Amino acid sequence: MGGDAGLPVTVPAALEFARTRPDTHLVLVGLSDAINACLDAQRDVPRERIEVLHAAEVVTMDDSVEVALRRKKESSMRLAAQSVKDGRADACISAGNTGAWMAISRYVLKTLDGIDRPAIATSIPNQTGGATTMLDLGANVDCTAEHLLQFGIMGAALAQVTEQRERPSVGLLNIGEEVIKGNDVVKQAAELLRASPLNFYGNVEGDDIFKGTVDVIVCDGFVGNVVLKSVEGLAKMLGSMIREEFQRNAYTLLSGAIAKPVLNKFRQRVDNRRYNGAALLGLRGVVIKSHGSADAYAFGFALQRAHEAVASGLLARTTASIAQMTAARNDPATDGAGPIGESSL
Amino acid sequence: MGGDAGLPVTVPAALEFARTRPDTHLVLVGLSDAINACLDAQRDVPRERIEVLHAAEVVTMDDSVEVALRRKKESSMRLAAQSVKDGRADACISAGNTGAWMAISRYVLKTLDGIDRPAIATSIPNQTGGATTMLDLGANVDCTAEHLLQFGIMGAALAQVTEQRERPSVGLLNIGEEVIKGNDVVKQAAELLRASPLNFYGNVEGDDIFKGTVDVIVCDGFVGNVVLKSVEGLAKMLGSMIREEFQRNAYTLLSGAIAKPVLNKFRQRVDNRRYNGAALLGLRGVVIKSHGSADAYAFGFALQRAHEAVASGLLARTTASIAQMTAARNDPATDGAGPIGESSL
Repeated sequence: MGGDAGLPVTVPAALEFARTRPDTHLVLVGLSDAINACLDAQRDVPRERIEVLHAAEVVTMDDSVEVALRRKKESSMRLAAQSVKDGRADACISAGNTGAWMAISRYVLKTLDGIDRPAIATSIPNQTGGATTMLDLGANVDCTAEHLLQFGIMGAALAQVTEQRERPSVGLLNIGEEVIKGNDVVKQAAELLRASPLNFYGNVEGDDIFKGTVDVIVCDGFVGNVVLKSVEGLAKMLGSMIREEFQRNAYTLLSGAIAKPVLNKFRQRVDNRRYNGAALLGLRGVVIKSHGSADAYAFGFALQRAHEAVASGLLARTTASIAQMTAARNDPATDGAGPIGESSL
Repeated sequence: MGGDAGLPVTVPAALEFARTRPDTHLVLVGLSDAINACLDAQRDVPRERIEVLHAAEVVTMDDSVEVALRRKKESSMRLAAQSVKDGRADACISAGNTGAWMAISRYVLKTLDGIDRPAIATSIPNQTGGATTMLDLGANVDCTAEHLLQFGIMGAALAQVTEQRERPSVGLLNIGEEVIKGNDVVKQAAELLRASPLNFYGNVEGDDIFKGTVDVIVCDGFVGNVVLKSVEGLAKMLGSMIREEFQRNAYTLLSGAIAKPVLNKFRQRVDNRRYNGAALLGLRGVVIKSHGSADAYAFGFALQRAHEAVASGLLARTTASIAQMTAARNDPATDGAGPIGESSL
């Protein structure tokens, strides 16, 4: 039901996904009349793999976390998370209110053992042609060093899945040469990360996100959220400026037409719709958040993220990593130095 | 002496500046033999307005703040700041080690009454065609709400000068719709800013930097530094990707040649060299920091920033704003609501 467009985006995207992934079964959770009307308008609906689960209410973008959690106990978000909890679904996806989605999925699914705080992670395309996994993006504004370590564990498990890295490198977002390098929490987190079995690279700076210096970048949710929105803002500004320049007059329009294949190729490379689908990590279930402004193409990638996470055993990987980390800490003989990676499964 | 290139950038830029600004007198501080050799190699040197002040040592990029401050008491940075302190210069500029430059200028010049912590501020081009003044960019990693308020005062005074705004609007960088809006410091800072005579807009998000929603954006130095480097990193990545696409084959090269005037126009609009020159605010003197990678064109803009700040009485404006703020706080009758702006001078 969620996102700026709602069903006209989510239903066609879900159908397209079901068609291209014959191994999947979809549960569409929400106001069933509206969903069925939407389905009826579509062709080639694989009805045998599409189920509609009726929810009496919908969490809106303006609903506070309290309202979403305490007053709307029959919401589509609630039932979707519950379907994962009950084993009826392997993963759940929403394009709705992020705060509510995080609170509801956390309330219903609970956190994994050893994880204090769930975090929001996404992939950001970088110069290497791959993507940098970054977390937290806004779930936790005040973090301790221990939380940042846990983000490192969860982020590494995610990067194993999305970037097919055996031992993803993990960087800690910090500031550079300026007066004081990092605050106390960041300094302590660096020590914890260094002592952990993670493949810890050390401190990284803002531009390392795009250089692809490391596979995973860890930061608190305040910093991560501001950075993500800043770079989205810059990308939007540059996009509209370049459009303006090509639309100035007949000559610029013509050269724009000639350069179109090149500009399209460029646009494809930086199309962030291909990276849609943030993971809500640290929960006892796969939970994905699509960008609210996603179109059907972008929403399809959020569905793929969920599929990938389930297919490659994201939860098992995360759980194994945490267990290994805990064992390493309790057993000083290993000096916390056993590598975390495929081998831990 | 500072910056990646040193004198080959700073000396030509200084001469060009002296030529175009016949009202200025320049003091070149550093190793005098090297500076004089560099001057001798240039033509049309207005010697009567160029003075060389010999400094026995130079702070390097690798020097710690302690070394720069305690061991190199005859450094060019130290003498440059001292020349402002002694009234021999109205402003000082360096492209060297940011941490050292901040520490030395603060040690020599001291902070203004009512300012606890100096801050680093810069202008970032935005979609309106103007620029957003943003601070702090790395001088203070742990800030209190009171510090953020002071950044608002200093940033508003700077935006009056650089953006010719009578009552610059001030926004507080915060996170959006996510689980919890802002940490405690940010929440308290919003209250202080709202009660102040500043033209406080309220919370803004990362993308508002580029939308130009407000004239001034205030944040702690950790967040500001990471955001600045992230957007620089993205800009660099996009630039190199678009170059790559135009260099793929004969067709793309040709269309690149045809589109060149348009792409150049675009490049000009987003050329961040025109925004070079961060202000170290809150000190009893005008102190400017150029980007270390600045070329002579960019370094010229840092010199212009210094000139602007002196010519428009930045220090007097800042001092007046602080005094007005203090008066408003001590006199509850005004309810802290008198506007801060030109009228305060």
